[in-house]
Amino acid sequence: MLVYHLYSGGKDSSLAAWILTRLGYDVRLVTVSFGILDNWRFAREAAENLGFEHRVLYMPREILERAADMAIEDGHPSNAIQFIHEKALEALASLPEVERISDGTRRDDRVPLLDLPKARSLEDRFNVAYIRPLLGIGYRTIKELTERLFVVEIRESEQLEKADYEVELRHLLRERGIDPLTIFPKSHYQSRVLGWRGQL
Amino acid sequence: MLVYHLYSGGKDSSLAAWILTRLGYDVRLVTVSFGILDNWRFAREAAENLGFEHRVLYMPREILERAADMAIEDGHPSNAIQFIHEKALEALASLPEVERISDGTRRDDRVPLLDLPKARSLEDRFNVAYIRPLLGIGYRTIKELTERLFVVEIRESEQLEKADYEVELRHLLRERGIDPLTIFPKSHYQSRVLGWRGQL
Repeated sequence: MLVYHLYSGGKDSSLAAWILTRLGYDVRLVTVSFGILDNWRFAREAAENLGFEHRVLYMPREILERAADMAIEDGHPSNAIQFIHEKALEALASLPEVERISDGTRRDDRVPLLDLPKARSLEDRFNVAYIRPLLGIGYRTIKELTERLFVVEIRESEQLEKADYEVELRHLLRERGIDPLTIFPKSHYQSRVLGWRGQL
Repeated sequence: MLVYHLYSGGKDSSLAAWILTRLGYDVRLVTVSFGILDNWRFAREAAENLGFEHRVLYMPREILERAADMAIEDGHPSNAIQFIHEKALEALASLPEVERISDGTRRDDRVPLLDLPKARSLEDRFNVAYIRPLLGIGYRTIKELTERLFVVEIRESEQLEKADYEVELRHLLRERGIDPLTIFPKSHYQSRVLGWRGQL
C-alpha cells in the first residue's frame, strides 16, 4: 500500500507522514518545485534525516506565475497558496502509478484546505484515495505528538530555509519588483523538522 | 496519553480505536447507554475480542426522549442522532479525569458529525482535545484498512444486534407505538466487529 505524500519538511507534513507509516502504508515523500529555486533540498534533507524516500515533482512555472498574479491582486497570499496546492494534488494524482495521495493539511488550517466536495472531486477525477491524517486533530494534539516525535526548528518565514510553495512565490514576487512583506503576514512562524527526537 | 473513545462495536469506531493505539495513545472504549436496553453488551464483547478496556457511560433517559421527539417531528432520525452524539461527547468530556476524547466519525458521514466551530467549542468548553482519526479518510481507505484488520459482520440495522444509539431510539419509538421503519431508512446496513483478522 504505497502512498505519495506532499512534503515540505515542516512539522505538519512530517507528522502526517509518520501517521501513514503507523497505519501500515509505504510512504514516498514528494516535494513540489517550479524549478526556480532549489529549496526542495531542505525537504530532501528532512526526508533523509527521517529515513523516508523522497522525490521532486516539477510543475510548470505558469502555475506559479498565475499564483503570483492572484496574490498581487488580492493583496494577500491565501488564494495563491490554495491554488498551488490544488494544482500540486492534481499533478500528483494524475501520475499513472499513483493510487493514493496525502498531505499534512489540518483541521484548523484555512489554506491550503480542500472542502469535502473538492476532496471527493479530486478522488473521483483521478481515481485515487486522498488521505489527510491531520484533518481530525487540533492544535493541542498536533503539538503533543510532534513534541514527542521530532526535533523542530521554528523561525519567521523570511528567515527559515524551507521547501514550501511560499519560498518560490516570494522569490517570484521579488523578481517582479514587489516586496513580499506587503503581501505575506509580517510575523509568520514556520517550522522545519531536523530529525527524530532521541534518535540519530 | 489516555484517550476516551466513544465506541459502538462497529467497524468505524473500531478502526478509529486502532489508529489511536498506533499513534501511541492508551485507549479506553466508552459506550453510551440510556439504561433502557443492555445492547451496550455487544460493544463490550467487541472490545473484549479486540483487547481494549471498556466502560459504559449512562446518560439520562430524557436525552433519548428528546431525541425521539425530534425524530418523530422530522420524520427521519438525522437530527436525533446528531443530538444524542453531541450530548454523549459533552457527557464524556465533562468527566473530571478526561483530557482527550475521540470517536469514529468520518469525512463522508452526514450525521453524526461536528462541524469545525462545534468541534472547537467542545474542546474549549470542556478543556479537552477532540480527536477524530477517520475525519481525513474516505470510503476507499476505510475499506482498505478495515478489511485488513477486522472480521466484520454486516447486516440490516433491524436485524443486527448492536450497541449504537439507534437501537435504544428505535426501542423508545416502538414503546410510543411508532414503527421505527416509518422514520429510519428502509435498508440501512450496519457493521459489527467480531475480532482481529487472523488472530485469536
